[in-house]
Amino acid sequence: MNGTSQSMARSPRRSVEVTEVIEWRDGETRRVVDYLAAEEPLEIRIFSAGASSVPVSVTMRTPGHDLELAAGFLLTEGIIDDAQELLGIHALTDETTGKSNVVEVEISSSEYDPAAMQRNFFAASSCGICGKASIEAIRRRGLRASNPGFRVTPEVLCSLGEKLRSDQAIFEMTGGLHAAGLFTASGELLTSREDIGRHNAVDKIVGWALLEKQLPLSEHILMVSGRGGFELAQKAIAAGIPVMASVSAPSSLAVKLSRELGLTLVGFLRGSRFVIYSGAERLLQSAS
Amino acid sequence: MNGTSQSMARSPRRSVEVTEVIEWRDGETRRVVDYLAAEEPLEIRIFSAGASSVPVSVTMRTPGHDLELAAGFLLTEGIIDDAQELLGIHALTDETTGKSNVVEVEISSSEYDPAAMQRNFFAASSCGICGKASIEAIRRRGLRASNPGFRVTPEVLCSLGEKLRSDQAIFEMTGGLHAAGLFTASGELLTSREDIGRHNAVDKIVGWALLEKQLPLSEHILMVSGRGGFELAQKAIAAGIPVMASVSAPSSLAVKLSRELGLTLVGFLRGSRFVIYSGAERLLQSAS
Repeated sequence: MNGTSQSMARSPRRSVEVTEVIEWRDGETRRVVDYLAAEEPLEIRIFSAGASSVPVSVTMRTPGHDLELAAGFLLTEGIIDDAQELLGIHALTDETTGKSNVVEVEISSSEYDPAAMQRNFFAASSCGICGKASIEAIRRRGLRASNPGFRVTPEVLCSLGEKLRSDQAIFEMTGGLHAAGLFTASGELLTSREDIGRHNAVDKIVGWALLEKQLPLSEHILMVSGRGGFELAQKAIAAGIPVMASVSAPSSLAVKLSRELGLTLVGFLRGSRFVIYSGAERLLQSAS
Repeated sequence: MNGTSQSMARSPRRSVEVTEVIEWRDGETRRVVDYLAAEEPLEIRIFSAGASSVPVSVTMRTPGHDLELAAGFLLTEGIIDDAQELLGIHALTDETTGKSNVVEVEISSSEYDPAAMQRNFFAASSCGICGKASIEAIRRRGLRASNPGFRVTPEVLCSLGEKLRSDQAIFEMTGGLHAAGLFTASGELLTSREDIGRHNAVDKIVGWALLEKQLPLSEHILMVSGRGGFELAQKAIAAGIPVMASVSAPSSLAVKLSRELGLTLVGFLRGSRFVIYSGAERLLQSAS
């Protein structure tokens, strides 16, 4: 419930739960039906030739697009480098609950070491609680923002927010989700995802691109609702995205990372105004 | 930078970083000084009699109030049950960088098992990326919201948002932080904390209460900016807080947890309106 109209038209059913609540307004109460953004844990398990599967991550996410989430997570966290290393991916359904909260992924990485991976991942979840959460760790992966020659005009940039918002079906209903959208240089929205975790929305976008064989996203702009944190900038760079924009402020570490690795980072993208934190040459002729 | 006035008066220096950026507005660009919400990793290490310290969590946080963050984290995640189990706590400073991004905590818990704890924590970070992120796991800890008889009026509830906002010094400057505030039943703001991670802001509040020997917070209201997610509801319950309110929507799992464990959960607390998801009897006479 967020006061806007509550169309169910585009809603993936698993992403929204319906419940009865009490609204209080100016001293009056009434019982109303409310739509909640669904939140359930997703466990990602990996296996490779000859080994049994091991869990490498458990994340609270909005159900839906789970294979994309798992695929995107593996790529942005550096477990796999491209779609070729992904040999298979499927969801497991719990027979008792009927819920599908586990995704198993088969990978071909020659550097696969379940024990090390598990140590690493449990220390390094994708939300910013992470041992690898330092620019040094990113640098060691050899990451660098792609396509220094990519250009997008400020006018196109200013048009993205409205397009992303009009595509946010679940937020419309629940008021409770983060969104990420992938755009072309001319401002066309290719796909958008919503999730209760902002990092998941980005992983779902990247996973979509991976499964669609669209990587690297070197001619694309990523726009996110809310804040532009370190982990989002890192994921954008890992997917080859040259420009990331957010509605709210970036963090200091996101700015540092973007400046060091060449990502164009834009914040406070609202109406006909934005702030450029890094990589202005992709947006302004005068800066190139 | 968020368009509001940028008073430095109350700013803890480590929580804000200053940088030069480019602002674009209606086709005009200008270089301006911007304030960024600082984001750095904090490692929490635990030791107990006879054992060497082991890292149990690394979280990206806004520097400042780090001892509170560590103490609050240990309590809300169930490592310690009260202030008596906290024997000592101090920050370590890196001699090379001069930065203080590690907190060591000595605890007396008789159930202390560094290996199990490490496994558990790396799987169970406090942001929702967690193996224990299920109501079942919370139930196993024996948690239950305290003080069913606690009452707060809707009018007091409606006054909290403005008080919290007027206390948000860093957000004023950076536009990039989550806030949490602790209030009495009469609406007095006892303390507030800001952090780039919403769970950290709550842990800093709980840690403050723990170090001030104020636990359990059974006569208090927790208000958070943004969304009311599962992990915040869980942390509120662990600290003995009977009422949690948020500016935006709660998640489905936060609602389920609150209903099952008796937490009063309020969302969309804005102006003279809010939505009650759980525990209406603490707010409305007619519901008791």
